[in-house]
Amino acid sequence: MAPQSKLDLVISLAKRRGFVFQAGEIYGGSRSAWDYGPLGVELKENIKREWWQSFVRGREDMVGLDSSIILPKAVWAASGHVATFTDPLVECTQCHKRHRQDHLIEAFVAKKKRDPENGMDDIVCPDCGTKGQWTEPQLFSGLMKTFLGPVDSESGMAYMRPETAQGIFVNFNNVLTTSRKKPPFGIGQIGKAFRNEITPGNFIFRTREFEQMEIEFFVPGEEADKWFKEWVELCWDWFIDLGINPENMRRFDVPEDERAHYSAGTIDFEYNFGFQGSQWGELMGVANRTDYDLSSHTKGSGTELSYFNQATGERFTPYVIEPSFGLTRSMMAFLVDAFVEDEAPNAKGGVDKRTVLKLDPRLAPVKAAVLPLSRNEDLSPKAKELANTLRKHWNIEFDDAGAIGRRYRRQDEIGTPFCITVDFDTLEDNAVTIRERDTMSQERVPLDQVQAYLATRLLGA
Amino acid sequence: MAPQSKLDLVISLAKRRGFVFQAGEIYGGSRSAWDYGPLGVELKENIKREWWQSFVRGREDMVGLDSSIILPKAVWAASGHVATFTDPLVECTQCHKRHRQDHLIEAFVAKKKRDPENGMDDIVCPDCGTKGQWTEPQLFSGLMKTFLGPVDSESGMAYMRPETAQGIFVNFNNVLTTSRKKPPFGIGQIGKAFRNEITPGNFIFRTREFEQMEIEFFVPGEEADKWFKEWVELCWDWFIDLGINPENMRRFDVPEDERAHYSAGTIDFEYNFGFQGSQWGELMGVANRTDYDLSSHTKGSGTELSYFNQATGERFTPYVIEPSFGLTRSMMAFLVDAFVEDEAPNAKGGVDKRTVLKLDPRLAPVKAAVLPLSRNEDLSPKAKELANTLRKHWNIEFDDAGAIGRRYRRQDEIGTPFCITVDFDTLEDNAVTIRERDTMSQERVPLDQVQAYLATRLLGA
Repeated sequence: MAPQSKLDLVISLAKRRGFVFQAGEIYGGSRSAWDYGPLGVELKENIKREWWQSFVRGREDMVGLDSSIILPKAVWAASGHVATFTDPLVECTQCHKRHRQDHLIEAFVAKKKRDPENGMDDIVCPDCGTKGQWTEPQLFSGLMKTFLGPVDSESGMAYMRPETAQGIFVNFNNVLTTSRKKPPFGIGQIGKAFRNEITPGNFIFRTREFEQMEIEFFVPGEEADKWFKEWVELCWDWFIDLGINPENMRRFDVPEDERAHYSAGTIDFEYNFGFQGSQWGELMGVANRTDYDLSSHTKGSGTELSYFNQATGERFTPYVIEPSFGLTRSMMAFLVDAFVEDEAPNAKGGVDKRTVLKLDPRLAPVKAAVLPLSRNEDLSPKAKELANTLRKHWNIEFDDAGAIGRRYRRQDEIGTPFCITVDFDTLEDNAVTIRERDTMSQERVPLDQVQAYLATRLLGA
Repeated sequence: MAPQSKLDLVISLAKRRGFVFQAGEIYGGSRSAWDYGPLGVELKENIKREWWQSFVRGREDMVGLDSSIILPKAVWAASGHVATFTDPLVECTQCHKRHRQDHLIEAFVAKKKRDPENGMDDIVCPDCGTKGQWTEPQLFSGLMKTFLGPVDSESGMAYMRPETAQGIFVNFNNVLTTSRKKPPFGIGQIGKAFRNEITPGNFIFRTREFEQMEIEFFVPGEEADKWFKEWVELCWDWFIDLGINPENMRRFDVPEDERAHYSAGTIDFEYNFGFQGSQWGELMGVANRTDYDLSSHTKGSGTELSYFNQATGERFTPYVIEPSFGLTRSMMAFLVDAFVEDEAPNAKGGVDKRTVLKLDPRLAPVKAAVLPLSRNEDLSPKAKELANTLRKHWNIEFDDAGAIGRRYRRQDEIGTPFCITVDFDTLEDNAVTIRERDTMSQERVPLDQVQAYLATRLLGA
């Protein structure tokens, strides 16, 4: 068997331990979307909570929003998505499978380290292996549609949002009035978005249904460059503070011809996911959307989206700095970055290999595991009682199955920062042994101080 | 002007203060969905967090899941939704507007307090006023479809989930294996669902895009009745504990002919929203879904969804008890229930009317407001500094605009439990005045004890 890459190991762990399942797996599965299992949903919620606290609730110049997924066609016409949110699609005339032309060319370049000199003639169909038998590229919309109301007609057609951002722009006046903020200020939103990707793939990296965490930060045009730089740094620091190794993340200043139609400047953060070929994948981007969006919706709707500065007596259309995070991509990056294989002492005085997710305690899906040393009518109730007390504050696992070393391994593998062992001494001294995940150091802590011990070490987790 | 009902006042407050906006308002708006503004998103998140803690994280017999919105057709064929998730639709032959037949009849009964003796002949079209000119009812699917992949064809058609439940059932084996739970145990999920309602209406009560909080609790068949009763009580207590007045909530034992196709017993909770006509609306339901779902998906997928009890050596298909909460309906109920008009003393020694949302502090969107007595170069920085410290833990507002009494009113109206006033004495005694929302009592608290003061009174909020 070929040696597995770190990414393969992470994906395998994520499936085996219940972080991520294939959507509709028992019906043959889908690559359009993934389901988040008991551990995955906790990890994802923890990322969302940290993001919301860092960028929305914790900042006086930010407020939150939760706008709808389905929005009228008119919104997407005005935003430019109907006209320009398209990808070039080519079909292999041999096997009739369709592919994104730009993805085929990227794959060629990544593999051969050069451009295809004869254009599509050099490109081999990944499905049937035929070379250079491609139709002319057709533009294909990435918008997903649905129908509202009692008939499937054009009049009832609506689009599912391909980004949460537009829900923010169309609510600009509503938020301005009700929150009484003034530029510079921002609106943050976390939610699902949908894009009809031709070739979903790379696990949870490219899917048709995914989650975003987006900020639209509204500033006077002359402050746009300053805030753009500021937000690039804030976003970078957020990932580093939550444990991402800076060597695994890099910035990419997107050249003008590759930028989205609205952008006057974009810096993407790429993470070293370890994909086949290029290794790196886009994690998030910060864009200077200028006044494109508010101006477009002012034109499209006839409602003036701008700000009247009472101090200067001037009305202006704010520029928008947009830090746009992929939530599911962030989760994948945190998993890959936390994955470590090292060694742990075993019961025979030797060492065993262990797998450990060195997740920041704030992100860890399970904060502590309570483990009775053995299944026993004295130890088990005491351990369950402790678990139930701690469960009022944190996500806690109780595990009484198998040897204690094996149970430690199970918790290490899912990133649980603390294992609390209830043993026979506990019945005498009313204390437990708390083992820390990374150092594997152990400490004896009185039962009635366990909660305070965890509270201190888990901080806000 | 006609006197406004309490419901009208709540809806007006929700729009005016930024709890809820109409989706796509600047483009004429939509009744399909609503957007949740800065206060609405915080209130909704607080409800979700309380629910998740009460029913998922806080229980040793529960785990969480977050499955996808889009699921293959096969899932909805096996679940029975393709065949039976339909409503009877009639069209007025005069104006060609379509309506749900059952809703027209319900409205007739609510208004006239009797059944329509001559059936549809008695029913007047709500759009054009013509009486009894209706087509024969046609069954109309409530499922919303979309298309995946590069062509809009049947093969790429998928449905958006009309309930989160099916994502839980199809993951039954995955969760069983990875979480190592055994029945009785449950899986909880919060997420969006989509139903093609013919006549959305009543504010956020009936929309095409909405949010659910669902539990599928798996039990041995012989324990189904016991767990059904248990969950009805747990759900009831959850609403009461969070402040719902029991007089405004009632149980409705759904008769067999009105139950969903899968249910062997359903108790709906109805809340007195104050709708025109019947006043009451469905808030949530607890259903005994028997082994219908796991059996259907076993047949549909060919994958055995059941549990092997190692102790007895027997394999069985668990029954499912399903408490299904409407999240957006719950939010609406909490808002209506908390809305009170009373009196507050004013600066002239008299009393003013005040509007107050007596939300449980755990649900309140803003936990405390920091108010410098006046805009002043000494008071404002001190107040801002306090606000920034508290913002590390809670959602905090800072407000320095207008008379202090008016600022109290603004906070009362959005349910903020505590107002913290920084006044000129603060510069001398390093203390602030904290005012409690419901009693309006005031207390002097040293600046360095404000955080502890709030932590105690907000409990886990």
